[in-house]
Amino acid sequence: MTAGLLLRSRSGAGTAERLARSAAAAEGAGMATGDVPGWLASRRRACPARVRRIPFAELDGWSFAAGTGDLRHRSGRFFSVEGLHVVRPDAEWRQPIIVQPEIGILGILAKEFDGVLHFLMQAKMEPGNPNLVQLSPTVQATRSNYTKAHGGATVRYLDHFLRPDPDRVLTDVLQSEHGSWFYRKRNRNMIVEVDGDVPVHDDFRWLTLGQLGALLHEDNLVNMDARTVLGSAPMAHPERAALSPDAGLLSWFTGERARQDVRARRIPLREVTGWHRDADSVHRADQRFFRVVAVAVEGSAREVSSWTQPLFEPVSRGIVGFAYRTFGGVPHVLVHARVEGGFLDTVELGPTVQYVPENYAHLPPAERPLFLDLMLDMPSDRVRYSAVHAEEGGRFRDAESRYLIAETDESTTPAEPPPGYRWITPGQLNWLAGHSHYVNVQARTLLAVLNTHAAGIDHAPV
Amino acid sequence: MTAGLLLRSRSGAGTAERLARSAAAAEGAGMATGDVPGWLASRRRACPARVRRIPFAELDGWSFAAGTGDLRHRSGRFFSVEGLHVVRPDAEWRQPIIVQPEIGILGILAKEFDGVLHFLMQAKMEPGNPNLVQLSPTVQATRSNYTKAHGGATVRYLDHFLRPDPDRVLTDVLQSEHGSWFYRKRNRNMIVEVDGDVPVHDDFRWLTLGQLGALLHEDNLVNMDARTVLGSAPMAHPERAALSPDAGLLSWFTGERARQDVRARRIPLREVTGWHRDADSVHRADQRFFRVVAVAVEGSAREVSSWTQPLFEPVSRGIVGFAYRTFGGVPHVLVHARVEGGFLDTVELGPTVQYVPENYAHLPPAERPLFLDLMLDMPSDRVRYSAVHAEEGGRFRDAESRYLIAETDESTTPAEPPPGYRWITPGQLNWLAGHSHYVNVQARTLLAVLNTHAAGIDHAPV
Repeated sequence: MTAGLLLRSRSGAGTAERLARSAAAAEGAGMATGDVPGWLASRRRACPARVRRIPFAELDGWSFAAGTGDLRHRSGRFFSVEGLHVVRPDAEWRQPIIVQPEIGILGILAKEFDGVLHFLMQAKMEPGNPNLVQLSPTVQATRSNYTKAHGGATVRYLDHFLRPDPDRVLTDVLQSEHGSWFYRKRNRNMIVEVDGDVPVHDDFRWLTLGQLGALLHEDNLVNMDARTVLGSAPMAHPERAALSPDAGLLSWFTGERARQDVRARRIPLREVTGWHRDADSVHRADQRFFRVVAVAVEGSAREVSSWTQPLFEPVSRGIVGFAYRTFGGVPHVLVHARVEGGFLDTVELGPTVQYVPENYAHLPPAERPLFLDLMLDMPSDRVRYSAVHAEEGGRFRDAESRYLIAETDESTTPAEPPPGYRWITPGQLNWLAGHSHYVNVQARTLLAVLNTHAAGIDHAPV
Repeated sequence: MTAGLLLRSRSGAGTAERLARSAAAAEGAGMATGDVPGWLASRRRACPARVRRIPFAELDGWSFAAGTGDLRHRSGRFFSVEGLHVVRPDAEWRQPIIVQPEIGILGILAKEFDGVLHFLMQAKMEPGNPNLVQLSPTVQATRSNYTKAHGGATVRYLDHFLRPDPDRVLTDVLQSEHGSWFYRKRNRNMIVEVDGDVPVHDDFRWLTLGQLGALLHEDNLVNMDARTVLGSAPMAHPERAALSPDAGLLSWFTGERARQDVRARRIPLREVTGWHRDADSVHRADQRFFRVVAVAVEGSAREVSSWTQPLFEPVSRGIVGFAYRTFGGVPHVLVHARVEGGFLDTVELGPTVQYVPENYAHLPPAERPLFLDLMLDMPSDRVRYSAVHAEEGGRFRDAESRYLIAETDESTTPAEPPPGYRWITPGQLNWLAGHSHYVNVQARTLLAVLNTHAAGIDHAPV
């Protein structure tokens, strides 16, 4: 028998080296990097959707259920807004939460041109994006999308991701999304390579990782779905040494997960005490955190031409950042083992800070979150990366944060950090992002920056 | 600053090589392998516990709660027996389930003698073990144990595992346990190395991995807790090639997890329709699957000298096995992506078969589980490993299964297996067992066999 011929190298055919080559390619075989913003603007003009806030009463097909008060679509599909009750030893709260048990696909198609991997990116409109159209994965589809619950158009390029050739998959991992806003939401983050001809529709362009890294410096250009997939790419980060050996890092993480006692359970939206519903929003009495609102989308050429839906709208802009230091010449970022009520498994690794500062403005300095003021007051000469990005525009409205990576020192961020924090290398973060339940979506945006070398953090291999 | 001195090799100081040396050591610096069964027998005599079935009414501190019918301890600690309602597209059932949200520690202490790693194993009594005393990890403790909810004795060697030195941790991972009997149960599986003198109590002995591999051939000698930790050890399996590249394997697994629609929710035990409670047990009307029973333990020298508790008792012996083939000289085992109602994340990889045959005896051949009859009828000359092992004797009574690894061929187990099954190498299985949510507890017993070379499956590196 010829089974020997069936064997493959476990590590794939030079995947890490080929991704590195693509990250080093400042330009590619397709559109010039500098032309991408203008192209997105032209796509915006070609597809002039208008999004406006509406009262809940104008929602079509969505309503607050009689018994529970949950906000649901009459089809029972898409998602619903329900309540979450979180109990921890030192805190307890209730909040609205988005429930969407379906697992969607965020997929990027990859193909070599002139020996360099390019990625097929889409100009896609989402109603919650501040500028509506952003650069998105090849496919960004909920199961409702691709099984046509919308009654809309076919999802382009979907077939490449439904039954991918295992030999051509570069990454395929279920990743969590915002644990403060979603109940146990996961999407499938995929990069799949193709060889043959791929017809390129007007809304799509092939770009290298180097080009995507350059574009990550632009505000509100690369959408969240693209960032999380790029953060899940199996890059080769060269460091072989770190403050923690890999086994010690896993042990610390296991300890963080084991020591947290979090009980989170779904409750009817009506039982979310402290929140009020009026004609236009569901909001906290003190107007902190976020609001549930409704929008109408008109005149778009998306899957369906117009629709209404709820969105979560944060009260103001967030700040999300990694403290960054080198130890013995090896770059490290300071991760935070975060509890978020909606995580399936208690704790994931987040950035050093991930806060909406306005929510903490009333607190005296000693009670403010660790490292928040450090990052807010960061001198510009210490900032290695900074850009404003929005979270998923299909669920969140103007959910902008300033994302940054800033070089810090022993006086502000010691080598022995406080409990719950750990210095790890970009390679270690990337290794963990290859599996579910380790790296949260905000940290994956910053990992996309590291993976594409957009922060310019280079060093000699150790 | 001297931060460079702080750097560690990410891969640890030759951990895989040192584990391989220990697996190759047929004897060690301590007790001879052949003397271990006799030593366990002497520990049984030295600690003559008696376990007897009692009616529920004789339970001390345990009772069925008035409203829910749940079986609980008056302290609210330890565990409870509640109900689970599982809904899948093609099936729906209700069953009793053990709820124990605490994360316990299963820890093995490791130490080099004459340059070879030895593991400190304990002769430990558990009331559900068929022969009461089996070889166990150094520490096997629920949080109730080590925070003294039992009011019992101190857990020996516990300090090594509560705040382990990250540089001396060989493995530390949360692993699931029986998803058919436990609701989302996880334990922390740890191996921690020490250098200094360790006083060895009478109930403990240092053994090499090679010795443990030999002892895994004995029926009912190495307990489940020891097996799962050994299955989580970061061994070096030499194969660099496989039928699926690692990325393709993860993609298949992600697809299996994404396609399963499993809704499992806890319900009161009283609402578990189809099960009956009498004075002595909670059981199904047709007596299939398992019973909930109660036992009294008397005269033991465990943490407390006598106690009563509930146990789950399967109706008869199970069969758990891997089909095994080589492809191009590289060994592979056939894993099954299994849904178990109590898993936190839907699907984990189990053995090729994992069934209690009696539960399926009434079915016509065409409806019996895949590969079950193949494994039941396996000719002895194809069996590479076979032994009877019991599951965790602190929760399960006489829960024995025949564990086997048997060489099969293309006619019975094709290279392209049915949906839900996949050929993977021992190295790939071991790699996945280094993270949570991938490998179920039965597969980890068989992985312990592979890790300790107990199945004698050797091959040239590819």
